[in-house]
Amino acid sequence: MRIAIFGIGLIGGSLAKSLRESNFASEIIGVENSQAHAEKALELGLVDRVESKENAIAEADLIILTVPVNALIDELKYVLERIKPHQIVTDCGSTKGVIIDGVRNAANRNRYVASHPMAGTEYSGPTAAISGLFNGKICIFCDVENSDSDAVETVEKMYRAIGMDIKQMESHQHDIHAAYISHISHISSFVLAATVLEKEKDEEAIFEMAGGGFESTVRLAKSSPNTWSPIFQQNKAYLLEAIDTYIEKMYHFRNLINKNKFAELEKFMSEANEIKKILK
Amino acid sequence: MRIAIFGIGLIGGSLAKSLRESNFASEIIGVENSQAHAEKALELGLVDRVESKENAIAEADLIILTVPVNALIDELKYVLERIKPHQIVTDCGSTKGVIIDGVRNAANRNRYVASHPMAGTEYSGPTAAISGLFNGKICIFCDVENSDSDAVETVEKMYRAIGMDIKQMESHQHDIHAAYISHISHISSFVLAATVLEKEKDEEAIFEMAGGGFESTVRLAKSSPNTWSPIFQQNKAYLLEAIDTYIEKMYHFRNLINKNKFAELEKFMSEANEIKKILK
Repeated sequence: MRIAIFGIGLIGGSLAKSLRESNFASEIIGVENSQAHAEKALELGLVDRVESKENAIAEADLIILTVPVNALIDELKYVLERIKPHQIVTDCGSTKGVIIDGVRNAANRNRYVASHPMAGTEYSGPTAAISGLFNGKICIFCDVENSDSDAVETVEKMYRAIGMDIKQMESHQHDIHAAYISHISHISSFVLAATVLEKEKDEEAIFEMAGGGFESTVRLAKSSPNTWSPIFQQNKAYLLEAIDTYIEKMYHFRNLINKNKFAELEKFMSEANEIKKILK
Repeated sequence: MRIAIFGIGLIGGSLAKSLRESNFASEIIGVENSQAHAEKALELGLVDRVESKENAIAEADLIILTVPVNALIDELKYVLERIKPHQIVTDCGSTKGVIIDGVRNAANRNRYVASHPMAGTEYSGPTAAISGLFNGKICIFCDVENSDSDAVETVEKMYRAIGMDIKQMESHQHDIHAAYISHISHISSFVLAATVLEKEKDEEAIFEMAGGGFESTVRLAKSSPNTWSPIFQQNKAYLLEAIDTYIEKMYHFRNLINKNKFAELEKFMSEANEIKKILK
């Protein structure tokens, strides 16, 4: 199958690697706005060739959009208007409600399968592309009733070929879960980094004392603002709710310490420990 | 050198493993209040034998206390009162100011070296003990001017033998850094877990959507309440300051989203990205 990937960064590049290694793709065409990223993607062998949008759309059986979510609606409309009836389009956007609403009346909407492969790292760009990024992870499909069943089947086959399991979900349900699990994790890391950086002018001390778990907790604070700002924007309503719950609990934790209620604090932590059972 | 370790959990057990593998210890005596932990430590070969406090103190050249920080002052006083002048005592407590203040007038204070090896995992107990836990990490020595120089040298040799670098620091300075780097990381994880657990009654959804970085950010929420509650208690003053800074920044982040100030939000995240440069 000939596959075109729009955006050869962390996600697009890792998809390209995995699709090649799994032999699912017979050829991978890259579409990339950044000349530097396009050259790097070719140099790294992530894609067989780089083409214009028009050429890529004309030639590909399956088109995957991995551009940032703020560019996704326009890009999806552009592609959907130009495909032939047998072609299939999917995306990797971290938000789903806004995207799906945005293409509700687009041409060939039925050829679009809304998906969100739940995988990533804190790095970005084509040099961040890695093999196995998706293996063993979950891909969420949203509102599949609006997509042709052959399109859903093909996209499912594609994700399964690179080791993913599929879960179907209503798009707004996806966005609530994503706010509470993925998005708030990123925000708590960004805020942790900002807190520590403000206090610790002595950078050496951070580096030297980072052994106690700081590094894994702050890891996501290295993530790309260009990727995440539009995600937070599109998922604003659910995210504000998640942040408010988080702040409320942080205040509660603070007050238990401040009022020397350490038995209650241990109870709070024991309940938080339950996360163990859920994360294997 | 014959070494006694009081408390054979994650830290004590990992020390025992590392000290044996490095051949620094000729014999390791364990002291353990929990009968179950004592038996497990023997079964796992972490210690050569388990003894009463009195016997361990009578026989060891170096005594390492890895008990929770709320038990540490009494245990330190107990040991220091009973040692002979050539013996050396150290601890692994995550707080230093309260501990050092607590033994200011203890017998043989000069034979005690206050240390904090900055290493750990989210697990606890003797089965959590692992080789190499300390390798490449930093150990903080506090207020060494109150300890005999031969004692400091021996404890330094011990930590260097298991791969640690040593950094000296004033105890309250240590506690400020620990609050901002280690302790607040744990709190942000506990609060994240509590937030998500409250919302996500559907546990399967958490498990399935955990690919996006949630798992590393929430990892420390698995940590032992018995270990961490007394640390938060002893480091209360600095910790409240750190939590207040964190909450203030979280509010700021929330308000930037709420008021659609996404350019400013990207600037906030770019500044947080600076943590990259510090964490190699």
